[in-house]
Amino acid sequence: MTARETLGLGLIGSGFMGKAHVFGFATAQRVFDLPFAIAFACIAEQTADLAEAARASLGFARATDNWRDLLDDPAIDIVDITAPNALHKEMALAALAAGKHVYCEKPLAPTAAEADDMATAAERSGRCTQVGFNYLANPMMVLARDLIRDGAIGEPRSYRGIHAEDYMRDAAAPWTWRHDPAGGGALADLGSHALATAEFLLGPIAAVFGETTTVIAGRPGPDGQSKAVEVDDIGRALLRFASGASGSLEANWIASGRKMQHDVEVYGSRGAILFSQERLNELKLYDASDPSDRSGFRTIVAGPEHAPYGRFCVAPGHQLGFNDLKAIEIQGFLRAIAGDAPEPFNFRAGARVQHLVETIHRSAAEGRWRSTAA
Amino acid sequence: MTARETLGLGLIGSGFMGKAHVFGFATAQRVFDLPFAIAFACIAEQTADLAEAARASLGFARATDNWRDLLDDPAIDIVDITAPNALHKEMALAALAAGKHVYCEKPLAPTAAEADDMATAAERSGRCTQVGFNYLANPMMVLARDLIRDGAIGEPRSYRGIHAEDYMRDAAAPWTWRHDPAGGGALADLGSHALATAEFLLGPIAAVFGETTTVIAGRPGPDGQSKAVEVDDIGRALLRFASGASGSLEANWIASGRKMQHDVEVYGSRGAILFSQERLNELKLYDASDPSDRSGFRTIVAGPEHAPYGRFCVAPGHQLGFNDLKAIEIQGFLRAIAGDAPEPFNFRAGARVQHLVETIHRSAAEGRWRSTAA
Amino acid sequence: MTARETLGLGLIGSGFMGKAHVFGFATAQRVFDLPFAIAFACIAEQTADLAEAARASLGFARATDNWRDLLDDPAIDIVDITAPNALHKEMALAALAAGKHVYCEKPLAPTAAEADDMATAAERSGRCTQVGFNYLANPMMVLARDLIRDGAIGEPRSYRGIHAEDYMRDAAAPWTWRHDPAGGGALADLGSHALATAEFLLGPIAAVFGETTTVIAGRPGPDGQSKAVEVDDIGRALLRFASGASGSLEANWIASGRKMQHDVEVYGSRGAILFSQERLNELKLYDASDPSDRSGFRTIVAGPEHAPYGRFCVAPGHQLGFNDLKAIEIQGFLRAIAGDAPEPFNFRAGARVQHLVETIHRSAAEGRWRSTAA
Amino acid sequence: MTARETLGLGLIGSGFMGKAHVFGFATAQRVFDLPFAIAFACIAEQTADLAEAARASLGFARATDNWRDLLDDPAIDIVDITAPNALHKEMALAALAAGKHVYCEKPLAPTAAEADDMATAAERSGRCTQVGFNYLANPMMVLARDLIRDGAIGEPRSYRGIHAEDYMRDAAAPWTWRHDPAGGGALADLGSHALATAEFLLGPIAAVFGETTTVIAGRPGPDGQSKAVEVDDIGRALLRFASGASGSLEANWIASGRKMQHDVEVYGSRGAILFSQERLNELKLYDASDPSDRSGFRTIVAGPEHAPYGRFCVAPGHQLGFNDLKAIEIQGFLRAIAGDAPEPFNFRAGARVQHLVETIHRSAAEGRWRSTAA
Repeated sequence: MTARETLGLGLIGSGFMGKAHVFGFATAQRVFDLPFAIAFACIAEQTADLAEAARASLGFARATDNWRDLLDDPAIDIVDITAPNALHKEMALAALAAGKHVYCEKPLAPTAAEADDMATAAERSGRCTQVGFNYLANPMMVLARDLIRDGAIGEPRSYRGIHAEDYMRDAAAPWTWRHDPAGGGALADLGSHALATAEFLLGPIAAVFGETTTVIAGRPGPDGQSKAVEVDDIGRALLRFASGASGSLEANWIASGRKMQHDVEVYGSRGAILFSQERLNELKLYDASDPSDRSGFRTIVAGPEHAPYGRFCVAPGHQLGFNDLKAIEIQGFLRAIAGDAPEPFNFRAGARVQHLVETIHRSAAEGRWRSTAA
Repeated sequence: MTARETLGLGLIGSGFMGKAHVFGFATAQRVFDLPFAIAFACIAEQTADLAEAARASLGFARATDNWRDLLDDPAIDIVDITAPNALHKEMALAALAAGKHVYCEKPLAPTAAEADDMATAAERSGRCTQVGFNYLANPMMVLARDLIRDGAIGEPRSYRGIHAEDYMRDAAAPWTWRHDPAGGGALADLGSHALATAEFLLGPIAAVFGETTTVIAGRPGPDGQSKAVEVDDIGRALLRFASGASGSLEANWIASGRKMQHDVEVYGSRGAILFSQERLNELKLYDASDPSDRSGFRTIVAGPEHAPYGRFCVAPGHQLGFNDLKAIEIQGFLRAIAGDAPEPFNFRAGARVQHLVETIHRSAAEGRWRSTAA
Repeated sequence: MTARETLGLGLIGSGFMGKAHVFGFATAQRVFDLPFAIAFACIAEQTADLAEAARASLGFARATDNWRDLLDDPAIDIVDITAPNALHKEMALAALAAGKHVYCEKPLAPTAAEADDMATAAERSGRCTQVGFNYLANPMMVLARDLIRDGAIGEPRSYRGIHAEDYMRDAAAPWTWRHDPAGGGALADLGSHALATAEFLLGPIAAVFGETTTVIAGRPGPDGQSKAVEVDDIGRALLRFASGASGSLEANWIASGRKMQHDVEVYGSRGAILFSQERLNELKLYDASDPSDRSGFRTIVAGPEHAPYGRFCVAPGHQLGFNDLKAIEIQGFLRAIAGDAPEPFNFRAGARVQHLVETIHRSAAEGRWRSTAA
Repeated sequence: MTARETLGLGLIGSGFMGKAHVFGFATAQRVFDLPFAIAFACIAEQTADLAEAARASLGFARATDNWRDLLDDPAIDIVDITAPNALHKEMALAALAAGKHVYCEKPLAPTAAEADDMATAAERSGRCTQVGFNYLANPMMVLARDLIRDGAIGEPRSYRGIHAEDYMRDAAAPWTWRHDPAGGGALADLGSHALATAEFLLGPIAAVFGETTTVIAGRPGPDGQSKAVEVDDIGRALLRFASGASGSLEANWIASGRKMQHDVEVYGSRGAILFSQERLNELKLYDASDPSDRSGFRTIVAGPEHAPYGRFCVAPGHQLGFNDLKAIEIQGFLRAIAGDAPEPFNFRAGARVQHLVETIHRSAAEGRWRSTAA
């Protein structure tokens, strides 16, 4: 461990996700026996002042107001992109071309075609990539997948997936870049999580029927005038999985009172699994083979049996938090860079989610089922 | 009260629902100040033995193996139909023609056209009718409707409705009349409840997109051979309400582990309401105008403030049961007969639900949105 | 069944509990194959007007303003006492002397000595008696007891019992007979339920340490002046069971927000059971022998496997209500009268609970542990 | 911030709590604008090998097998003690004498007298001290305290506190130092948390009545022979607060199925608060002044309104984990060192908890109420 190679991290962006990444790297470094040490080499922000402030508070060695500075810096091995979506592609392609591993926040790009380009570039580069679908890093989500795979609920038949929050509930809140079509709307922002989870648990979605709704038609613009909102506040889809299972999905960012309803219900021939990110340390399991007078959903509580929970805490029930999930995601990425494991969720996987989002939008526009085949 | 008129009850069928109706009438009689006394006049079953056994155990004065005997009996004012669906129309039309009030279990008839005929006959007869949608009799469901109507959650925007159970989970369980297309499938059997609740809370559904799935293609028939199942095990729909709200709906009778998931989530511009029939004495309410550091879904527990709970019990939190809901439904019907109140859920309302079920089926077959206008 | 003997019921009192008994008898009659038919023969109230009103609304044949009229009436087989506690003994002894079976609401009497007298009189009379501890009639409570008895949680080690409501929360609410020492206080009123449940599940309590608190020292009296409250608002006890298990108990009628917290937690050497009357159709079971990565409390939902639930409803998860529990209790009493089963909770059992209440009060007054041996 | 002074950390012990402290310091450093930078200067373990392994994996500059090395090291400002309880006093007194700030895991010492000595030494030293009661760092616990202090539930009347886990459930698990009287038992280990929480929320406890139980009398010793267990598996107490409120408390380390039942229920004259560490990001609040038909416990979900949650995550409902609470605790300690705030939970507070534990033990031994006055 003492002889570990050090990887230099170059981070672009210091907002919500930029911070979460830094917390994740810092935690991963202490919690796991990582294959590499991490050096917080450089942080890029839009202005020199912003960059310097972020450098100081987040603990980087250098700061820059030009993200391209990261490309030529030999001290940087990983470029971590948490800038606005519209910039992801340019940044990622440049970083891959410069020989860097790339960690990029979701969604990869405004369109599936652009995301595909990124995935192709990643594959050609021989570098490792990672897209930030951190809910999949939760040990309880992994347990759900393993239970399904191992037949604990029999053949999966029916699926419900939801990702609902309420941060866009208030019609008086201002228009932001998230209301721009390039930003994506509820389906792209939240539905992408729900879609990633659906395929993580049940395998490929073969066909979708979509519907999207803009509930708040206009929001206060920078000039005080109402500015039209063209993106969906709610996106819904009916799903047909390649396995034959069917399901439904909802993305909703105006679901009053919901703060993190990333919920899953999977009903199989011999059991069922329920999960809610609102209580991310719990998983409910129903086993139809239990004696009928004492069967019921059991609430499994996260503990050391659910690796890598035990790295964080040796005692069960003490609970992981959101930032801990980020640390697990990062550990997976670093193990992939070391060649110890496949990439947990690379650009190709990220492009797949973008493709699903886009197919749902097309289906909604056309009012008919669409295949999700490329 | 001592001078109350007595209404004679003639019941057809003594199975699950026949018993539930008798329990409901018996309880209603004790719990409420009904406008009428009820005489348990006659019960009809398919054979004389069955009829006599039911008479004795359920406390009727007479028994018959011919339901038509009820029509000419001047001691009978209400004909109560809990026979198989396929017989509802013939029985109801005959009873209305004989001048009886008619109480009929859901669904009214295998097709919407037949249900419409029944509704038209009811309206022409001047008699009162009632269809058994007892979940709507729950004081907490009425509270939900009143809160929505009174603006407690602002403008309703988004809706989720589910009715899921698991009594058809086991593929080895035998083929029954419920697997016959005339019986209807999950959408007709359970989805009808979810549809009635949706319109009860949010008003008319204007358009639907449907999808139905038969998961278990064949079941053991009477001869031991596999018999094809032609009805849906799961029915799903996307909904557009006339109000502009949108939503989704699922009916599922193979949802392993679920016994009574008649669930509703309504998200409005200023709050939200959650309800699950799994805990029928509770309603959750979110009010976005609560101080932000202490807002959250509150769990309202049924009590005397929620009429007619107080007729059953003066103390809150003691809980009503399923059969109590039936008693409330019956009280409403009797009050309508007395002219004290409108019919809670008459044949026209029942036909409406059948129409919605049928429209979802057609939409599913055609793979496109359909208007629910008649 | 047709040839069933009819038992005549004479009811004293038409308040909350009087009504609940009538509802219970009416429901039991329809739901169960009772060994007897029940005739609602006569109701006694304090005045002729009250009696007549109750007769009409509750469906009795006769009314009287003198409860002693019930004693000589040969049409009456069961005297059912729901009058104030202070009158229970006189009424019960007279009814037993008149050869009646006696059903008496809890608590049996203001003192354990009086309750003992009643129990002794009952045993000498050869008649059947019943005290109204209806929570024990809940199929989920019976399931809990059976699971414990059959070793599902190993050796019981630790117990928590609570009965908390909030109907006395408001200090501005008037002084009532319940605030009179003869009425009893929270420990006698609610703690008696918790004590009955504790011995039902874990067997005899051997010793107690008690503590009682009067939080609201005075309440508005009839003359508008503050009237001193001498009874406890909260009663607590530490428990030692004869089996070696230990535990605690709380009775509280000022527990703001609680409407029916009759809660039990039993921890054994190999598992645990949790129950809350707030959700009376559920029982939680933990089995320590489940695989450690998928163990957890499972929520068992009441269904036909839990007799006699199936008499009320053939479908699981539809839920029993409070009045249904009363019907089950009554069925047990009638079966005992028929000689088909032991008395579910007779006067001796009721006297035992009174004795436990009194021992806790004594312990509290003396500030030391006391044995509960007679 | 760039000019921040750096404090050197010397850690004694690298087990469960040692790791949790390191994670906490690392996270605090990134998440908060701390008044100091932290240098991970030196780690002490029992052997050189252990020390070196811990140094490498946890990221310290130096390692030592002699904790006294930390005392003379001018690079060390804070000595952090996570060694076995029996060593706390010696280490802490030496560190204070050497002019270090001291962070010590709970319990401070095997006896209250020793803990008092430590508190006195701390006060004389002019250095800052901290004892690891991290549940109190939870923003939802702070919200609970603030709501109570601000009158949101009126006058607190009744209290229930529990800390139950099940890590000692299995009688076949080996005897450890925790079963040694100096280790303390369930009351000292878990009850200390429950006691700290009780006084945090309701102020001083004035008197207690205790009871302790050893359920598993012997456990396999190192020689394979059964070794007697002299400590309590369950400790219970009745409480009288100086404010006049009363309550109860339970510590239990054999509560099968419970992993983190640090539960609190506070009932006041106008409302109530419920909290469970099993869902540490939630707090339930009942307000009796809500309209009676829509009152109920509301579930408040942790978010940026509940400082310092927002330092970890700008989005509500994403959830903090156990290690995050440690980071908050550490931030408070560092702010105290900087003179920006009072010590969150210093040695005097830790000694107080020891005193309460000891008084409960004495009360249990004597079988009578005892005052907690020193």
